[in-house]
Parts: sequence; C-alpha cells; structure tokens
Amino acid sequence: MSRTLAFLGLGAMGWPMAAQLARHTKETGGRTLVWNRTQAKADAHAREFGSEAAALPEVAAADVIFSCLPTSAEVDEVLTALGGQLRAGAVWVDCTSGQPEAARRQAAGLAGRGVAFLDAPVSGGPGGAAAGKLTVMVGGDTAVLERVRADLAFAAKVVHVGDVGAGFAVKAINNTLMAVNMWAAGEGLAALARTGVDLHAALDVINASSGRSYPTEALIPQRVLTREFPVTFQLGLLAKDAGIAAEVVQDARASAPVLTQVAALYRAAAHSIGAEADYSAALKLVEQMNGTEIK
Amino acid sequence: MSRTLAFLGLGAMGWPMAAQLARHTKETGGRTLVWNRTQAKADAHAREFGSEAAALPEVAAADVIFSCLPTSAEVDEVLTALGGQLRAGAVWVDCTSGQPEAARRQAAGLAGRGVAFLDAPVSGGPGGAAAGKLTVMVGGDTAVLERVRADLAFAAKVVHVGDVGAGFAVKAINNTLMAVNMWAAGEGLAALARTGVDLHAALDVINASSGRSYPTEALIPQRVLTREFPVTFQLGLLAKDAGIAAEVVQDARASAPVLTQVAALYRAAAHSIGAEADYSAALKLVEQMNGTEIK
Amino acid sequence: MSRTLAFLGLGAMGWPMAAQLARHTKETGGRTLVWNRTQAKADAHAREFGSEAAALPEVAAADVIFSCLPTSAEVDEVLTALGGQLRAGAVWVDCTSGQPEAARRQAAGLAGRGVAFLDAPVSGGPGGAAAGKLTVMVGGDTAVLERVRADLAFAAKVVHVGDVGAGFAVKAINNTLMAVNMWAAGEGLAALARTGVDLHAALDVINASSGRSYPTEALIPQRVLTREFPVTFQLGLLAKDAGIAAEVVQDARASAPVLTQVAALYRAAAHSIGAEADYSAALKLVEQMNGTEIK
Amino acid sequence: MSRTLAFLGLGAMGWPMAAQLARHTKETGGRTLVWNRTQAKADAHAREFGSEAAALPEVAAADVIFSCLPTSAEVDEVLTALGGQLRAGAVWVDCTSGQPEAARRQAAGLAGRGVAFLDAPVSGGPGGAAAGKLTVMVGGDTAVLERVRADLAFAAKVVHVGDVGAGFAVKAINNTLMAVNMWAAGEGLAALARTGVDLHAALDVINASSGRSYPTEALIPQRVLTREFPVTFQLGLLAKDAGIAAEVVQDARASAPVLTQVAALYRAAAHSIGAEADYSAALKLVEQMNGTEIK
Repeated sequence: MSRTLAFLGLGAMGWPMAAQLARHTKETGGRTLVWNRTQAKADAHAREFGSEAAALPEVAAADVIFSCLPTSAEVDEVLTALGGQLRAGAVWVDCTSGQPEAARRQAAGLAGRGVAFLDAPVSGGPGGAAAGKLTVMVGGDTAVLERVRADLAFAAKVVHVGDVGAGFAVKAINNTLMAVNMWAAGEGLAALARTGVDLHAALDVINASSGRSYPTEALIPQRVLTREFPVTFQLGLLAKDAGIAAEVVQDARASAPVLTQVAALYRAAAHSIGAEADYSAALKLVEQMNGTEIK
Repeated sequence: MSRTLAFLGLGAMGWPMAAQLARHTKETGGRTLVWNRTQAKADAHAREFGSEAAALPEVAAADVIFSCLPTSAEVDEVLTALGGQLRAGAVWVDCTSGQPEAARRQAAGLAGRGVAFLDAPVSGGPGGAAAGKLTVMVGGDTAVLERVRADLAFAAKVVHVGDVGAGFAVKAINNTLMAVNMWAAGEGLAALARTGVDLHAALDVINASSGRSYPTEALIPQRVLTREFPVTFQLGLLAKDAGIAAEVVQDARASAPVLTQVAALYRAAAHSIGAEADYSAALKLVEQMNGTEIK
Repeated sequence: MSRTLAFLGLGAMGWPMAAQLARHTKETGGRTLVWNRTQAKADAHAREFGSEAAALPEVAAADVIFSCLPTSAEVDEVLTALGGQLRAGAVWVDCTSGQPEAARRQAAGLAGRGVAFLDAPVSGGPGGAAAGKLTVMVGGDTAVLERVRADLAFAAKVVHVGDVGAGFAVKAINNTLMAVNMWAAGEGLAALARTGVDLHAALDVINASSGRSYPTEALIPQRVLTREFPVTFQLGLLAKDAGIAAEVVQDARASAPVLTQVAALYRAAAHSIGAEADYSAALKLVEQMNGTEIK
Repeated sequence: MSRTLAFLGLGAMGWPMAAQLARHTKETGGRTLVWNRTQAKADAHAREFGSEAAALPEVAAADVIFSCLPTSAEVDEVLTALGGQLRAGAVWVDCTSGQPEAARRQAAGLAGRGVAFLDAPVSGGPGGAAAGKLTVMVGGDTAVLERVRADLAFAAKVVHVGDVGAGFAVKAINNTLMAVNMWAAGEGLAALARTGVDLHAALDVINASSGRSYPTEALIPQRVLTREFPVTFQLGLLAKDAGIAAEVVQDARASAPVLTQVAALYRAAAHSIGAEADYSAALKLVEQMNGTEIK
C-alpha cells in the first residue's frame, strides 16, 4: 500500500525525523511531504532527503500528518489554517512537547472531521532522531496507534502510555524530572564549591554512586564545567515543559511541592538568564544565588 | 611490612567491609581486629572470615583504625571510650556517613595525640562491599591517604575530594541528590497515576529518556511498584544524611532551596512513616499527599 | 427606580449577603429573588428576610444577578441551565471565589447575549457579611461597576482591581498569602515546640513583633492551640483557592516558588487530613510532619 | 541599691537602648557604661545621654552587662577579650539576634566563672527602642530574669520563652515568619503585576482581608512600591536570621519545608542583590525572577 506522509515543522528535531520518514517512504513506495514556516527549509530538506516541499493546504491530502512544533499554540495555528481541508480517515500525530489539555481539545475538534489524533512526543534528541532511535510516548486510541505504527520510522521504542494527552503528560514529567535532577545537582555542586571541594572529583564520585542522573553524567560535565552552554534546547522551552508538568499536577489535583518549586525556578531562570540560552544555563541562576561558579 | 588493622562497627556495610580487610591481611601477613557493640557479632565475624574479635581498648594498638557507625555521635562515643590509649602514628579512617563539622573536631582532637584522621565514607551498598567494589570519597591530607591506600581493600575507586570533612560533605550531597531524584520521581508518578497513566509504561519511557536516574531505574521498580519496601537502608538514616547536607549548605552560606526542601520532606517522612522503614518508603508520604498509590 | 435583584447560592457567605440585599431592596422599593440548589433554604430565607424564593428560570428576569457558589464549575452549571433566558441589559455579578480563566470565558459568553459580567469575590467572612462590612474586589468594566455599585449592599469597601478575572486573581492571591502565613507559622511553632518553647509565650512575642499576621493573631490562637478546628471554611476550598493562585502564576508566566509549594502542601493536607475539615486543620499535617502537636 | 550597667554595641538598636539605660540609671542613682568597637561612638553617646564611655576591661566591673552585636561571633570575641575579668555574681544579657547553640555554649562558659547568662533579643526597631517600647524575648533561668527585670528600661513587654537559647530561637522564627510573609507577598504581587492588576488596589484589598501581614501593611507600601528601599536593617542580617531558624529546625529534627526554602531564597538575595542592601530589597530578586517590577 502506497502511503503519503506529511511532516510539519523542520526544527532541530523535525528535520532528522522527517528525513527518516523520507527514507522510509522511499523504501516502501510512498511519499513524504514536508512543510515549514520558512519555505526554504522545506526546499532544502527535499533536495537533501528526497522529501517533497509542500504548501500547507497540500498536506491535507496525506494519510498521516506529523507535527513537531515549538508549542501547542503553533499546532493550533496550523490546524486553524488547514480548516476543513483535512480528509476523513487521516491520522494526525503530534510530536510536539504539547499540553495535554490542548491535545484533548484538538482531538475532539479533529474527531468531528473524521480525523484521528495521537499525541506522540519523542525523546532522544537530534542525535537519536538522525539515528532513527527515538523513544515515542503515545497517548490516544491503541487501534489508531496500530494504523500508524509502521510509519514511525524515527522510533526505536514506541510506548503507549494512556488516553489522548497522556503522551504529553509523560513527556512533561520526564523533562521536569531531568530539570529537577539538574537543578539539585547544581545546588549541591555550588555548596561543595563554596566549601572548597573539587567539583570534578565530586562528580566523579557521584557518577559512581547513587546520586547519579543524566545531568550529572552528561549535561553538567559537558556543558557547565566547560562553561560552554551550547544552545541545543532552549531554556525557555524547558521552562515551558516544566509549566506543562505544573498544569498536569494542577489538573490532576495532585500535590508536587518539588516539581512545582522547580518549575518556578526554571521560569525564574528563563526571565533572568534569558529564554534563548541553553537549558543548562539554568545553573547560572544557581551560581548567582550562591555567589560562586560551578566549574 | 606486617600491618594491624582494626574495624569498628559490623553493620550492613561494616560486616562485608571488614571481611575484605581480613582477606587482605591474610594475604599480606597482617591482622584484622574487629569490634562491635554486640560482641557476639564480632565473634561470628572472626569465625567466618578469620578476623580477630577485640575489646575496644585492644583496637588502640592497630596501625589503622576504621570506623563505620550509624552517625558521628557513635564515633564520638568510641573516641571518648578509647581516650588516651591511641598510639601516635596511627591513622583513623572514618567510613561513617558523618558530619563534616564532627570530622573537623575529631581530626583536631586526634591530631593532639599524634593520630591522623581521614573521613572516608563509601558508596556501593552491601553488595559492593562484599565484592570489594566500593567507591570511597576521602577528605583529609593526601599524604595520609597514601599511607593507607593499600589498606582500602573494600574499594574499587578511591577519590580524594578535599580537606577533612570534604568526604562527608560529598557523601551527604550524593545521598541527598538520590533523595531528591527519588522524591521528584514519586511526585511525577503520583500525578500521572491520578491522570490514569500506566506507571510501568511511564517508567519504561522515562528510563529510555532524559528523566532517568538511579531511583527510576532501580529503586522504584524494585521496591515501590512491587509494594515490598524491603529494609536495606533506614529512612531515618537517609533523613539524617539530608540533614547533614542542609548543614553543609548552611555552613557554606550557600542557597539550596530544593535540597533543603527535600531534606524537610524526608524528615517529615521519617516522622510520619517511621524512621525504621526502608528509605524507599518515603514515597508512602508522597502517596498520602496525593491520595493515590504508586503501583 | 425599582430594581429586581437575584441571588444564587445561600451558603455560609451567600445567606447573609442575600439578607443584606433583601434589606436594601425593602428600603429602596425593589425586590430580591433568592435561589438555592436546595429549595427549602430559599424558602427559609424568604421567611426570615423578606426575600422571594425563586425557581432558576425566574431569576432571568432580574436586573442584577449575583452568584456565590463553591467554584466556577457550579457557576457554569447555572449559566448553562439558564441558557438563553437572560435578558439583555442585565448584569451578572459573580461573588464566587472563582477562576480568572472561567470569568473571561463566562464574560465572553454572556456578552453575546447582551449581559455584562463582573467578577466580584468578597472577603470578611460570614460575620462581615451579616454586618454589611465585606470588602469586594471587582474585575471588569468600570462603567458596569458603576451601574451596580449601589446594589452592593453587603459591602463596606469596593475596590476595582482590573479587567474581567482580576477580582478572582486578587482573591486567590489574598487567600494563598493567608495560607502561606498560616503554614509558615505552623512550621515555626512546631519547631519551637520540639525545642521546649512555650507556644503561648512564643505567639505572645510574635504578635507584638514583625512576624505577626492574621493567622498568628487570630486563627492559630483560636482554632489550633484550642484543638477545636471549628469548620467555618473547608480545607478543600482553601486548597482550591491556592490552586487558582497557581493557575494565575502559570498563566502569567510568573515565578512563585513559595506560593506554588504552599499550594501543593494544602492539596496534600486536603488529601491526607480531609477536604471537609476546617482550613486551620491544615496544620495537622504540619504536626504529623514534625511528630509533635501545636498546643 | 546603686547599680552599674554596661552596654556593648552602639549600633542602630544599641544606641537608643543604651540611652534608655542611661536615663534609667540617672533616675535610680546608678551608672551606665557604654563600649563600642569605634570608641568615638561611645564618647558621643556619653556626651548625649550621660552614659560613661568605657574601655572593654572596665565593663567587667558592671553588675549587668548587655551586649547587642551583629552576630554571636562578635559576642564570642568580646567574651574572649574579657577573659577571666568578669566578676562572679554578674549577669550577662545578650540582646543580639544570636544562635541558640552559641547561647548554650556561652552560658556554660560564663557559669564556670559564676556569671549568669540570658539570651534576650528584642523586637520593635530603632523607633521602639527610642521610645522604650521594645518587646524582649528571654531565654534562661527565671530567677536570673527577676534579678535584672528592673534594668530592662528599653522594654515595654518582657516574655520568658524558655531555657537558655529559647529567646534566640523565638527571635529567629519571628524574623523568618516576617521574611516568609514578605517574600510570598512579593511573589503574589509580581504575578498580579504581570496580569495587569494595579498593585496599590491589590494591597488595599489584601490589607482589608485575611492575607494581610506586617510586610503588606507597612514594608511593601513604604519601601518597595516607593522604590526607596531605605537601609534600616541589612538584608545580610535577615539572611543570617533565617539561617539561624534553619539551624533551630535542624537541631530540633523538625520539618519546615517553607521556612527552609525561604531561608535559601534570602541567602540567594543576599548573594545576588547585596548583603548591605535593605532587607526589603530581597523583593528585587523576586522582580528579577519574574521579569517585572513591584510598583
């Protein structure tokens, strides 16, 4: 069966994800349409990977439409722009790190036109996308997931986590756990720095002990101790994700004093350090709060 | 050179650590004296590993005295009991998860009798001790460390982290990072449980993503989801460690809102769930706070 | 000009507020209709204060409709029930401690039918209502406020604080500040109790010093030290208000680590102590967390 | 009976307190010795109030010695300098906002020389001191308190709160409650500012409602909204007081997540805004964290 896939949003993640789709449809005899707000980027993608640059209305013809945009607000915009053009029987797969409440609203709107919706955010970073090794956490109907599972060419692991919105909820919690683990490690290292402990030695020990986490093993050694803070994922987007986690907590009438405190601190970091900085630069606020450097 | 080592405190960690020392001195022609508050335990250790059960005054004759006790208060007690009997030239290696301030005070007291002091807490758990694979974080003089390095038979990795007290500081921070990572994961999972997400699926995703940490990879799946909470490390001791981290922060005039909040929450868990419960049972307080179970 | 007022919701606050309206319209030659989910309460109000018990559709004829319900969800329900029956030119004054987002949505919906909306939550408690001495914080158009100002017979102080939703936002922040001040005082007293300080003496000092607040001056001496915890305002409703404050913070992209932490703790108290308990019973969770009593 | 009083430390509080003592001893036929690190200040005090400037050794002759210094560390310094010169039967009354642990240590040291000790910190500010209207919270033996009660000429209210150290503990908790109440109000106002609410109107409402506290009634209107932040009590000293509260909590094995979080935030403010700024300038950190001004 020849499939037409569409991919909306060729950012740091979307670009390599769409490349995997193009490779996949080339092998299976289908087509991959790509759209980006800046058209030139779509043209470049087509030249490099054999996808087809499309105007927004054209993607309405696809069997499966993937979106990977900064926030749910941009997904709302493309949905509004596409209006009634989507065709019944299509599946919309939103890989944005979006809001569960938006997913439920969008799914309800699309259902009225006969279009199914899955929230399907990913983890693994641009490297994982380029290698086709992403993890996808899917919210929505399992039967719908089965209709598109073979199309998720960018994924090494696909996990169904619940109803519509559950994918976004798990993604927001995951990113916020990472944010907590990084911030706490920053606090601990700043305190140790003030007592004269060598931080490379401290991290060496922690990474051989129970305090280890992804930030102590990778982010802090590579981005903070080096003072490089290379921008691969913006601080403002992580603050947004932590805010979504706070919404998940609030909507569930849950009690999460640590997650919500940390969400507040990342919001503070985005305001005071800059939303465009790398997310690891949140620790610059920890440094200011402690009058010391983590190096 | 024939060495006499002494080991004080044959608890969950001390028992296998002292066994490693006994194996080591057997190979190198030395002796390992063991002392425990309950004498029968020392006798049993001697029978099983070829160490020698000793009365407290007898350990004063050792070249190197190791202590591994619940808190710095018990170390103070044995130091007081030994009084002036320690001999000049000996080295005291305290593997307790102790307080930096106590280490500085104890080191100063011992220095007056010509005894050197290292704070040398360990990580790796009873399993790591039995395998001789512990990580040791050492505070104190590097020359003193070199005098005893060959005696650290329970260690796979020895890291000098700073002056006297620095080992305890790093250990307290490490354990508190673990405590933060576990508590935050508990909050996130409780919120997801309230929204109907399957927690096994959520952990599956998190452990393939950036939110992973030692508690999400090992503790929560093995101890919490199973509802077993097996007691291997008491909640009260972890609350004590987090309290030491709070002291480190306070003494350094550092600012650590997340670490100190979490220290307060573990203290609350020790009060409300019970100090003798397993440390993973701290998440029972998270469950009560959320009116749900993490399972 | 003879005015017809309607009042929906005869709870602890609504009952005396509606009584003030009835007294006022008796003096000015108008009518006050009252509606309550339980009709018998409206009948009793009519007998006692000369108001008129009304069925829900009948209130649609009023010039000004006041609502004072547990949450915005109940306001949504009565709005839906009244459907298209409201008449153009009426003003809806919602005295509920509601959600700003709901206010904006409700105002937009009513505007389509020619009905103006003000969010106008109150403070001062049942006693203040009975005395006609409430403070009203009003969000919405100032011209609309002037059209109903003379009808606010329960108020001693009316403050316009901003656009639609601003009244609810200020109310939520006010209640959350009270919640913070009470919780912090509870923590401080619990710590002092554990050190053997007499809490009556401590409160005597604090209330003559800079640490004083409404909870230390009134709530804790009257409700907690006495161990009475009389139910006048439910803990679950205060947890809801703190949750609204958290939504205000999130919607404003603000950073409020203390407010959001305390919102989480009140949610925890509602789950573990009980949502129907008096709001001062939140300090029972503080007591459990500290293994002591505040008395 | 003619009494000789001594007062050490003529700062913002000590200067008017010592003036009250001088007035009192003039009336009762005694003497008031004053000492200050900068001798010129003591000379000026003597000229203005009829006290007698004294060298440090001379104060050892007094019946009652008052100290009012920045921290317990400075009290340790004068105690060391006075060495064995204090005479048995004297009473040392420390009005510093000191550390309970230091009080216990100092009291034990003085007891060995026959000198009694009371920790007696005050509240009411320089204005209260000048009017002789301070509140004094006293820790120590009640019999000792009775021996000096008539000498507390700067006090309108004297409350015995417990054993040695209890006065300092209550003072630290009081100041930290004020700090919590101010910070929380700052967060709430910053969030409201971001939503377009007029902050003068918001404070007008809050101060007529349950959210009111000393900071909302006095500090924020007078110091923050005016953008004046006049330096009357240094931010670094309030951060120190909050740190003492954290020590009280830790020593008592209490759980105070809000107090300790706020202690961390004031430490952060002292590092990032400056320890010499007025304590109300802590809200400048709230402003930075929110990208807005409280005005």
